[in-house]
Amino acid sequence: MFVIKIGGNIIDDETKLASFIKAFSLIDGKKILVHGGGKLATKLADQLGINQQLIDGRRITDAETLKIVTMVYAGFINKNIVAQLQSQSCNAIGLCGADANIIIAHKRNHATIDYGFVGDVDTVNTSFLKNLLDQNIAIVLAPITHNNEGQLLNTNADTIAQEIAKALSKLFEVSLIYSFEKSGVLKNADDDNSVISTINEISYQTLKEEKIIFAGMIPKLDNAFTALNSGVHKVIIGKAENLQALIEGNSGTTINK
Amino acid sequence: MFVIKIGGNIIDDETKLASFIKAFSLIDGKKILVHGGGKLATKLADQLGINQQLIDGRRITDAETLKIVTMVYAGFINKNIVAQLQSQSCNAIGLCGADANIIIAHKRNHATIDYGFVGDVDTVNTSFLKNLLDQNIAIVLAPITHNNEGQLLNTNADTIAQEIAKALSKLFEVSLIYSFEKSGVLKNADDDNSVISTINEISYQTLKEEKIIFAGMIPKLDNAFTALNSGVHKVIIGKAENLQALIEGNSGTTINK
Repeated sequence: MFVIKIGGNIIDDETKLASFIKAFSLIDGKKILVHGGGKLATKLADQLGINQQLIDGRRITDAETLKIVTMVYAGFINKNIVAQLQSQSCNAIGLCGADANIIIAHKRNHATIDYGFVGDVDTVNTSFLKNLLDQNIAIVLAPITHNNEGQLLNTNADTIAQEIAKALSKLFEVSLIYSFEKSGVLKNADDDNSVISTINEISYQTLKEEKIIFAGMIPKLDNAFTALNSGVHKVIIGKAENLQALIEGNSGTTINK
Repeated sequence: MFVIKIGGNIIDDETKLASFIKAFSLIDGKKILVHGGGKLATKLADQLGINQQLIDGRRITDAETLKIVTMVYAGFINKNIVAQLQSQSCNAIGLCGADANIIIAHKRNHATIDYGFVGDVDTVNTSFLKNLLDQNIAIVLAPITHNNEGQLLNTNADTIAQEIAKALSKLFEVSLIYSFEKSGVLKNADDDNSVISTINEISYQTLKEEKIIFAGMIPKLDNAFTALNSGVHKVIIGKAENLQALIEGNSGTTINK
């Protein structure tokens, strides 16, 4: 089965998103789409005069920001993706972590930074996800979790994809695909032809030391390795527009242990 | 089983909502909660400078307004209710009509008024709802539907509750409860003690002619009679704070054929 994360830049581009959704709808077998939607949330926060702060690519989530991301991620983006999948004859359901207790998390406890209502994942309800997948329903997941005490929490979408892939690896052979606007992990961030076709744990350390891999790519790759070390079959990072080729292993960066 | 609509004024009141959610979580058996959230959507539209127009209590839904109601109804309100139910040990799932094709609708075609992206219901996917109810999962429904061609549509929450109750009447004995801020249908809108304990089709006509029943109460009662004429066992209208008494038939207005 496939757990596919779609990056925010694709979501912001109506044409690319439609083409991605069509490709996703054509995938045979069990599939989960995990989305974020950072720019739309930032835009809405700006319109409402709510200041946004990012640290290492993570959004600091105060109460007003939590409201915004819940509206944008679990509402607008999630339901529009589901409606578009339905129009492609792909039966889909849009959920967040609170729904059927899919993902229980706890508010992040950090020594020096108060991330606000940011959740770190504790448990994934694989039996409910399996029930839906067995009915041939594609699952569209917004990166909102809850603490089982009534509090919604904002959770990084890459992390959600990783945790879902890890948990479902106990039941299925899972390929985890991070799709975004670039062709893969790049040697030179400005050159989309400089794709690094494979990365392993050793080369990853070197690439970080040489600052070839930095910023938002670091949590993405950290998640990839954690996933592989927890039973995920394959992790691929590449261009959302090449989804079919990514699935076939003919595009993007493949991450090995 | 129970299909319970919760009115917007309760949703706007944090204390009343928490108390309603607790009462809902304690209901034995199969249950569906249908919510709207009009005031929050109107407030957000005001903050964003988007003009809102209502005709006979129905919101005219242009593209920007559809975005707002999708965010507020299917995102913020829906997921917060689900998280609060989970905290009361009531396993719940938050959905809109696009999810698993629960409710397919078409864009309203009206001779003189362009309602915009407003949907009138065509079909309800009872087998998927039954599957969830049989797993003892409470369903929380946001009043957003879709046309199966990729378009989300805004649908009156009272109508959703009615259509769901009608459709499920083929499988279950369904009680439909409209709960809101008043104690029932009132003789005098300003006197919460003037509850009309029962209304039938004949008295309804008189009450309308005498303008005792008017405005937003008319679609509510129209829906109630349509539901009864389509197999729904019982329709009760009353105060959300009295949910337990409403279920037991000790409060509110009971609608008979």
